[in-house]
Amino acid sequence: MQIIDVHGHISAPLALYAYQAQLIASKGFHGKGRPACSDEEVVDAAKPHVELLRKLSVDTQFISPRPFAMMHSQKPERIVHWYTEHVNDMIHKQVTAYPDVFVGVAGLPQSAGVSPANAVAELERCVTELGFVGCVLNPDPGEGDYASPPLGDEWWYPLYEKMVELDVPALIHTAACANPRESYSNHFITEESIAILSLVESRVFTDFPGLKLIVAHGGGSIPYQIGRWRAQRLQKNAERFDDSLRRLYFDTVLYSPEALELLLKVAGPDRCLFATEAPGIGSGYDPEVGRTLDDLKPVVEGIGWLTAEQREAVFQGNARTVFSRWKAAL
Amino acid sequence: MQIIDVHGHISAPLALYAYQAQLIASKGFHGKGRPACSDEEVVDAAKPHVELLRKLSVDTQFISPRPFAMMHSQKPERIVHWYTEHVNDMIHKQVTAYPDVFVGVAGLPQSAGVSPANAVAELERCVTELGFVGCVLNPDPGEGDYASPPLGDEWWYPLYEKMVELDVPALIHTAACANPRESYSNHFITEESIAILSLVESRVFTDFPGLKLIVAHGGGSIPYQIGRWRAQRLQKNAERFDDSLRRLYFDTVLYSPEALELLLKVAGPDRCLFATEAPGIGSGYDPEVGRTLDDLKPVVEGIGWLTAEQREAVFQGNARTVFSRWKAAL
Amino acid sequence: MQIIDVHGHISAPLALYAYQAQLIASKGFHGKGRPACSDEEVVDAAKPHVELLRKLSVDTQFISPRPFAMMHSQKPERIVHWYTEHVNDMIHKQVTAYPDVFVGVAGLPQSAGVSPANAVAELERCVTELGFVGCVLNPDPGEGDYASPPLGDEWWYPLYEKMVELDVPALIHTAACANPRESYSNHFITEESIAILSLVESRVFTDFPGLKLIVAHGGGSIPYQIGRWRAQRLQKNAERFDDSLRRLYFDTVLYSPEALELLLKVAGPDRCLFATEAPGIGSGYDPEVGRTLDDLKPVVEGIGWLTAEQREAVFQGNARTVFSRWKAAL
Amino acid sequence: MQIIDVHGHISAPLALYAYQAQLIASKGFHGKGRPACSDEEVVDAAKPHVELLRKLSVDTQFISPRPFAMMHSQKPERIVHWYTEHVNDMIHKQVTAYPDVFVGVAGLPQSAGVSPANAVAELERCVTELGFVGCVLNPDPGEGDYASPPLGDEWWYPLYEKMVELDVPALIHTAACANPRESYSNHFITEESIAILSLVESRVFTDFPGLKLIVAHGGGSIPYQIGRWRAQRLQKNAERFDDSLRRLYFDTVLYSPEALELLLKVAGPDRCLFATEAPGIGSGYDPEVGRTLDDLKPVVEGIGWLTAEQREAVFQGNARTVFSRWKAAL
Amino acid sequence: MQIIDVHGHISAPLALYAYQAQLIASKGFHGKGRPACSDEEVVDAAKPHVELLRKLSVDTQFISPRPFAMMHSQKPERIVHWYTEHVNDMIHKQVTAYPDVFVGVAGLPQSAGVSPANAVAELERCVTELGFVGCVLNPDPGEGDYASPPLGDEWWYPLYEKMVELDVPALIHTAACANPRESYSNHFITEESIAILSLVESRVFTDFPGLKLIVAHGGGSIPYQIGRWRAQRLQKNAERFDDSLRRLYFDTVLYSPEALELLLKVAGPDRCLFATEAPGIGSGYDPEVGRTLDDLKPVVEGIGWLTAEQREAVFQGNARTVFSRWKAAL
Amino acid sequence: MQIIDVHGHISAPLALYAYQAQLIASKGFHGKGRPACSDEEVVDAAKPHVELLRKLSVDTQFISPRPFAMMHSQKPERIVHWYTEHVNDMIHKQVTAYPDVFVGVAGLPQSAGVSPANAVAELERCVTELGFVGCVLNPDPGEGDYASPPLGDEWWYPLYEKMVELDVPALIHTAACANPRESYSNHFITEESIAILSLVESRVFTDFPGLKLIVAHGGGSIPYQIGRWRAQRLQKNAERFDDSLRRLYFDTVLYSPEALELLLKVAGPDRCLFATEAPGIGSGYDPEVGRTLDDLKPVVEGIGWLTAEQREAVFQGNARTVFSRWKAAL
Repeated sequence: MQIIDVHGHISAPLALYAYQAQLIASKGFHGKGRPACSDEEVVDAAKPHVELLRKLSVDTQFISPRPFAMMHSQKPERIVHWYTEHVNDMIHKQVTAYPDVFVGVAGLPQSAGVSPANAVAELERCVTELGFVGCVLNPDPGEGDYASPPLGDEWWYPLYEKMVELDVPALIHTAACANPRESYSNHFITEESIAILSLVESRVFTDFPGLKLIVAHGGGSIPYQIGRWRAQRLQKNAERFDDSLRRLYFDTVLYSPEALELLLKVAGPDRCLFATEAPGIGSGYDPEVGRTLDDLKPVVEGIGWLTAEQREAVFQGNARTVFSRWKAAL
Repeated sequence: MQIIDVHGHISAPLALYAYQAQLIASKGFHGKGRPACSDEEVVDAAKPHVELLRKLSVDTQFISPRPFAMMHSQKPERIVHWYTEHVNDMIHKQVTAYPDVFVGVAGLPQSAGVSPANAVAELERCVTELGFVGCVLNPDPGEGDYASPPLGDEWWYPLYEKMVELDVPALIHTAACANPRESYSNHFITEESIAILSLVESRVFTDFPGLKLIVAHGGGSIPYQIGRWRAQRLQKNAERFDDSLRRLYFDTVLYSPEALELLLKVAGPDRCLFATEAPGIGSGYDPEVGRTLDDLKPVVEGIGWLTAEQREAVFQGNARTVFSRWKAAL
Repeated sequence: MQIIDVHGHISAPLALYAYQAQLIASKGFHGKGRPACSDEEVVDAAKPHVELLRKLSVDTQFISPRPFAMMHSQKPERIVHWYTEHVNDMIHKQVTAYPDVFVGVAGLPQSAGVSPANAVAELERCVTELGFVGCVLNPDPGEGDYASPPLGDEWWYPLYEKMVELDVPALIHTAACANPRESYSNHFITEESIAILSLVESRVFTDFPGLKLIVAHGGGSIPYQIGRWRAQRLQKNAERFDDSLRRLYFDTVLYSPEALELLLKVAGPDRCLFATEAPGIGSGYDPEVGRTLDDLKPVVEGIGWLTAEQREAVFQGNARTVFSRWKAAL
Repeated sequence: MQIIDVHGHISAPLALYAYQAQLIASKGFHGKGRPACSDEEVVDAAKPHVELLRKLSVDTQFISPRPFAMMHSQKPERIVHWYTEHVNDMIHKQVTAYPDVFVGVAGLPQSAGVSPANAVAELERCVTELGFVGCVLNPDPGEGDYASPPLGDEWWYPLYEKMVELDVPALIHTAACANPRESYSNHFITEESIAILSLVESRVFTDFPGLKLIVAHGGGSIPYQIGRWRAQRLQKNAERFDDSLRRLYFDTVLYSPEALELLLKVAGPDRCLFATEAPGIGSGYDPEVGRTLDDLKPVVEGIGWLTAEQREAVFQGNARTVFSRWKAAL
Repeated sequence: MQIIDVHGHISAPLALYAYQAQLIASKGFHGKGRPACSDEEVVDAAKPHVELLRKLSVDTQFISPRPFAMMHSQKPERIVHWYTEHVNDMIHKQVTAYPDVFVGVAGLPQSAGVSPANAVAELERCVTELGFVGCVLNPDPGEGDYASPPLGDEWWYPLYEKMVELDVPALIHTAACANPRESYSNHFITEESIAILSLVESRVFTDFPGLKLIVAHGGGSIPYQIGRWRAQRLQKNAERFDDSLRRLYFDTVLYSPEALELLLKVAGPDRCLFATEAPGIGSGYDPEVGRTLDDLKPVVEGIGWLTAEQREAVFQGNARTVFSRWKAAL
Repeated sequence: MQIIDVHGHISAPLALYAYQAQLIASKGFHGKGRPACSDEEVVDAAKPHVELLRKLSVDTQFISPRPFAMMHSQKPERIVHWYTEHVNDMIHKQVTAYPDVFVGVAGLPQSAGVSPANAVAELERCVTELGFVGCVLNPDPGEGDYASPPLGDEWWYPLYEKMVELDVPALIHTAACANPRESYSNHFITEESIAILSLVESRVFTDFPGLKLIVAHGGGSIPYQIGRWRAQRLQKNAERFDDSLRRLYFDTVLYSPEALELLLKVAGPDRCLFATEAPGIGSGYDPEVGRTLDDLKPVVEGIGWLTAEQREAVFQGNARTVFSRWKAAL
C-alpha cells in the first residue's frame, strides 16, 4: 500500500523568500525578476524534505506553496502574481526532480478585493503545462480583513467553474493574518470553520456537482462542534448536518490521536485523506510520545475500529478518487 | 448527587426584548424606562424553563442574560447599560422565585471601545446586592469588529481585578456578530479559541493567580486542534501546552458524545463543568437519538472511563470549587 | 362630518418588538421566523388605541408602522425586509378587525445605501393584496448618516414611479437617528425641512405630475422659516416659494395652536390634512390646557378664520383627495 | 426710541474675500499677509450698508463677520485664525468710522476638531482691545461634518467661561455647510434647533448662571415645533419646556409676520431682540408686500397685542440688557 | 526675434477671487453668478502685468488661470466648473484687449475623483470659441490626496484624445496642495516629477503620437536626478532614458542660471520653451544679482554654448511648433 | 588621500531577506528568531561589495541597512524592531571583518505612527556597543502614507536630542513607498525635498545647534529648483535661502556630471560629502560613457574649478568633520 500525503508544502531555498521580500519592499519597481538561485539549489532544498517523508513512511506527498507566505494581501496585485508563478515553477522543478515523491498542487495568485477569476489563468497553466493535479484555495485573500465574500458566495464561481472543467480539487487553506488578535496559525482554523458553514448553507454543490473541496487541518472546529450544527438543523427541520458535511473532504492534519479519531467518526473514513503537512508546525519532537507529532501513520494504524478497506481509503484510495487527474496520469 | 448546570440563560418575557428594541430605535431618547411587564410575568416566563431542566435532570442552573442579545456593540453606551441592569434584575427576580433551581450570573455592560472598567460597578452590584456568583465575559464587545484587545491584554485588568476581589469566575462567551461572514453562533467558537490562545500566552494568570475563567462551548476549537498548539510549544521548548490549558476551565456544552469525550480527555475531568445551555440551540429533538441534544446527563454517564469521583466533580464538585461564592452561601 | 386622521402608527403587541430585537441580535441567523403572538393578540393590542381615537373624536385613522422602529439602517438588509413585511401584515390584521377605524398605510423596506427600487415590491404587495392606500417614505434610510441623496434626486424615481402607477401618496417621515447630536424626534423635523427644500428645487413634480407627498409634522421648520425661502426666491427672480410649497401636502401634527394656525395660513387649508399621530409623543396630559396635546380637533375648530368648507377639507376632504385609492374603495 | 438691530454682518470690500481665497488656495504658504485694500476702502465698503439701515429705520446695528464665510472647516487652522483676525479688524475700522451706527461683535477662530479654548484669546482681544460687546458662536465648526459635541457638552466650557468673565453674550449662528444634502442657509436652522435642544437638556445654565446666548433666526424650528417638546416634557414629568426655553434669547430674523408673531408669543417679548440681518438674504424686494422682507420694524409695530413696554424691550431694552457691556460703554 | 513666454498666468481683479471665496463658502447655493467687476476692471487688472512683461522683454505671453487657485479639490464639482468658466472668460477679455501681448491657454474644470472626460467640453469651448491654443493640465486634481491615477494611466485618455483632435498642447502644472507636509509650491515639483516618470514608462505616446505635453518648472527634479533614471534603464536594458524624456517638452521656469543650463543640456534646446511665469514667485528683486529672478532673457542669452538657432528655438521657434494652432492663427 | 564614501548599504546574504519575508508573513508569530545563515556567510556576502569598492577606488564606505527594505510601515512594530536589530548586527559583523573598508551606520527601528523616541535605544546600542558613527533617518516611516510630521516638527526632537548627545549625524533617506503613484526610488527624491524645506523653515537648528543632517541623493530637487526658493525668501525679506540651505550637508549620489557640478556650486564644496551608494541603482554599465554610473571619483576629479583643498574636503575632509565620532576612533 502506498502512503499518500495530500497536504505538504514546498521546502524552498532562501532565495525564494529573499525574492519575496524584495517584491514587497520595492512594490514591483524592479519588474518580475527571479529568485537568485540555480535550478540545482531548488532541487537541493528539497533533500531534507524528501528524507523526512521517508522517515515518516510517506511515499508520495502533494506539495503546494507554503500558505502563510502566499502574501495575498500585499499590493500591488502583480507582485502576488509574480511570486505565485515563481513558487509554482519551483514546485514543478522539485516534482520533476523527485517524480515518485512529489506531486504538484498549484498556489493561486489570489488578491484582496480582486475577483477569483484573476487566478484562473495561473491554475490552468499549472494544470495543463506543469502537470499539477489540484490547487490551494484561500477563502480569505484579504488575510484577516474580513472583507471577502465567504465560499458559498457566487463571487467564487469563476474559479469553481475552472476547477470542475480541469477536474482538480482545491485544498481550503488560508494564508497570513494581518489582524493582531489572531495568529495566522489559528486563523487557518477560524477560516476553515467559516468556509464549511458557508458552503453547507449555499447552493455551491447544486451548481457545481463535480466540485471537490478538501478542508485542511481536519475541518477547523466543525467536527468537534458538530453537535451545535446538528442541533440547529434539527430545529429548522432541514437536511441533517452530517449529510451536508459529507459533501466535503477533510485531511488528517490533526496532531492528536483523539482528534483524528473524532474526525474519522464524524466525517467518515471515506471522506478523510491522509496528510501530515510535514515538515511544518507538527515537526517538533515530543519526548513523551517518542516521535514528532506529524508522524501520523502509526496514529491512523492505531485506530482499531477502522477496517482494512477504510484504512486503505484513508491512506491512498480517497486521494486517488479526489485527485482524479493524478490517478489518470499513472 | 446534585446535577449543577453552570451555563444557562434567562428565559425572559417578550417585554424585555421589546424594551431592548425600543432602546435601539430611540438611542435612549426616552430615558432608561423599564420593560413593560409585571414581576409576575417575569416569574411566569421561567416556568417552561424550570420544567425543561427537571426533564433534563438538572437540579440547579446558573443563569445569565442571553448572550447573543447583549447588544454590546450598540451605541450610545448608556442603552447597553440600561438593558444590562434590567436583565440582571430580571434574573434576580427569577432566582428569588426559584431559589433551588436558579443561581444568578451577571451580564456585564460591556461596550465596544470602552474600557472594561466601565463594567465593574454593575458586576459589584450584582454580586454584593443581588447575590450573583459569577459573570459572563464577552471577549469581543465590538461584536465582530475585531478591534478589542484580546483577553491576554492588560486592557482587561480592571475587570480581572474586581473578579478576584469579589472571588467570582467569568464564563467567556461572546454576544452577537456584526460581520456577515460569520453567524453569532460560530463567532462564539471563533472567539473562544482566540481567547484561550491569548490567555495561555499572556501574563494574566501570573498577575492574577486567583482568576477563574470558564471557556464556554467546550473551549471553541482548541481541544480538537490541540495537537497543533502542543507542537508549537515543543518547537519553542516552552511549557507544555496542556499544562497551560489547564489553568482554564471548560463547560460541557458540546452536543456530540465524541466531542464531549475528547474534551474530558484533553482538559481532564477536574477542569470540566457540567452544562447544557438549555433551553437553547441544543433543544432540538433528534429522532435518531431519541432525545434532545442538550440532554447531556446520560452522555456524561455513558463515558465509561470516568471514575465516580471524576463524574461527581464534573456534575457538581468543580462547579462548587469555581463558584466558591455560591458554595459559601449554602 | 367624518374626522380622518392621516397620520397614525400601529399599536403592536410587544411580540413584534421582541421579534425585531431578535433579528438585530441574530442578524437573521434564525431565518425570517415570526413574532411570537397570535392574531388575537395583534387585534387586542389595538384596543386601547381604538378607544383613544374615540376619545379624540377621530373616526378613522390611517396607520403605518411606528417610524422610529423601522430599523432602516440595520444590516443585513434582509432583516429590515422581514420586519417590514411582518409589521405590514399586523397592520392588515388590525385593519381587518376594525374596518371602520383603521386604514392601512405601508411601511417600506428601505435600507441604507440600497436603491429605493428595492422597496417597490413590498409597496405593491401592500396596496394590491392588503388594500393599503399609501406609504410612509423615509428620506434618510441611513438614519443619520447623511449619505442618501435628497428627495429631489433621481435616485428616488423608481419609487415615485410605482407610487404614481398605484395612485398612492407617501407620508414623508424619517425613522431613527444614529448621530448622537440629534434625537430621532428632532431628526424628523430636520429631515422634513431638507426634504421640502430639495423637492421644491427639483424636477420631481415636473417628471411626476401625479405624485402626492405629505410632509409630516407640519412641514418641519419650513412654514415657520418661510420668510427666508421667500426672500431667496425673490432675489433669484424665480417662482414664488409659496407656489412651489403648495405642490406638497402637510399634516397637522403640531401640538401648539399657534403653530397649527401658522401652518394653515402659510400652506393654505386645501393643503393640510388633519392628523394627530395619537397615541404618540403628543399623548401627555397638559394640566394647564386640561387635555392631552394631541387632542387637536378642538384646536382646529378653534381657528376662527377657517370657513366651514376649509374646516371640512382639513378634517376629511383633503384626505379623500390625496388618498384617492381609499375613497375609491368606499 | 432707538432701534437696535443685534444681528448684522459686515459689508466688507472684495479684497477681504480675495484674501480669503488666497489663504484657502495657498493653505497659508505665503504667511498671514493682509487683504489688498486701504482703510479708506474698508470704510467705503460700509456706505451702502449704512444707507440701507437708515432706510430700514435701524439706528444701531451690531455687526460681526459674515457667518457663511467664516471658513471654520478649512485647514490648516492658522488660515482660519488669520482670516478671523483680519475681519474683526475690519469691523473695528467700520465701527470706528461709524460709531453711532455700528457696534462690534467678534467672529471667533473656531476650527473643526479643535477645542473652543483656542478661540478664547481672539475673543478677549476683540472685547478688551477693540471694544466689541459680544461674539458669534458656531455650534458646528466642522461645517456639516456632524462631529462636534453639541452645545450642552462640557467641551464648550472654556469658551463659556471666558464669555461670562468678559460679560459678553454669543449669537448662535452656524457658518458654511459641506454636506450637499443641505444648503448653508438651511443648516443655520438645523443647527439652531439642535443647539437649543442640547442646551435645555444640559447643565450649562446651572454651571454658568451668567451665560447669555441668543439663538439666531428666531430659534430654528423650535418655537414652531414647540408642541412636541412640551409634550415630551409632560410625559417625563420634567420642567415645562417653555420655562427651559426662556433661559435663551432669540433674535427676530424671521421674514414673515406670522412667524414673528409666533416667536413673540412662544418665547415672550422679554426674550426677543430686534434684528434684521440686513443686508442679507432678506433684502429682496417683494412687490406683493411693497418692501423688502428684512424691513421688519413695521412688522413688529404691526403686532397689535404687544404693549408699548414690550415693543420697547424688543426694539432696544432687551439688547441693552443682554449686551450689558455695550450699555456700560455709553 | 520675438520673445515668447509660454507660461504665464492671468492677473485678475480681486473680484475674481472674492467670487471664488463666495463659491467655496456657499457651496454654490447662490448659483453660478459672476465676479463683481466690469469688463473694464478686468482689462485694467492686466496693465501692471503688461508693463512687467515689457520690462522683461517678453513680447508675447501665454496666459492661463493662476494654478494654485484652480480649486480642483473643492466640492461640489459645479463650483469648480463655474469658476473655471469665468476665469477662462476673463483671460479671453484680456487677450482681446491686448492681442499682441497675450495668448489664451485654458484652465480645465478638473475635479478630484471625476473623469477628465468631464473637462473636455470646456477645453473645446476655449479653443473653438475663445481661440485658446493650449491648456493647463493638473496631474493631481485631488490637490494632495494622492488618489488620482498618474498621467500614464488610461484614465486620462479622453482628455488626450480631445487635445490631439484639437491640436493643442498641455502644460503640466498642479494646483493647490491640501497635505500640510508640502506647500503647493513644492508640490508642483513633486508632481511634475511623478508625471514624467509615469509618462515615460507608459504607452501614452504610442497611443497618442500627436500628443504634446510641456512639463512646467523645468521638469521638476528629473533633469537633476537624471543619472538615477538613466541607470535604472541601463540595468533593465531598456530604451535610454534620455530618449524617452525627449518625447516631452519643458519650460524654462527655473530661476537659477545653473539649473537652466543643466536643463538645456539634458533635455536639449529643441525641447525647451522659454517661459518666466511672471508675475509670480520669481518676481522678487535680488539685490545681489541686480534684477528680479524671473528676468530670464539675459540668463538664456548668457549661455554661451547655445547656437543662434538653438537660442531662437528656445525663445520662439519651439513655442510655434508646439502651439501649432497659434502659429496657424497668425 | 583617502576616498571616503559616506553612503553605502550592506550587501547581505539572502538569508536576511528570507528572514524578513518570514516576519512579514507570520507577523512575528514565531518570535524574533534569526536569519538562517552563519557568520561566515554574512562576511562572504560582502566580498563582491568590497571588490567593487576597490574597483571604484573607494577606500572606506559607511554602510547602513538597505533603505528600501527597512519595512518601516510593516506591522506589528516588533517585526520592524527585530529586523533592524539583526541587520545592524550583520553590519557590525562585516565591519569587524573588513575594518579598513567598512564603517557602521545604524538603521533605526522607525515605525509608522510611533514616536521616534522608540528608535533611540537601538541608536544608542549601535553607537555605544557596536561602534557605529551615524544613522539613517527616514522622514516618512509611513512609507508613502503622508501622515508623519515633517522633519521640522518637534515630534522628531527625542531622536535629534540623542543624536546630538551621541555626536552622530543622520543620513536622511526614505525607505519604501506604498503609494502606487510613486516608486520608492522617486519617493527618495520627493521626501528629501520635503525634508529640506521643512528643516530650513523650522527652529530645529536653533534648538539643536550641534545637529548634523546629510541629505541623500544630492538633496532631492532642491539644488536644481533653488531659484524658486531663493525668490520666495526675497519676497518675504527673510534670510537668503542659500544661507539656510548651508546648515545641511549633501552627499554626491547624483549619477550625472552636470547635476553633481550644480550641487557643488549651489551647496558649496564644504557641504558635500563624496558618496556612491555602490552597489546600487547606479551600478549599471553605460556603454556610451564606458563605465558604471556610480563610478563617481573621476567625475569629481573632472570638475576643473574645484581647488585641491575643496576636492580633498569632498573626498574625505567633510566626512571626517561630520562623522566626528569616527575620526575620534582613528
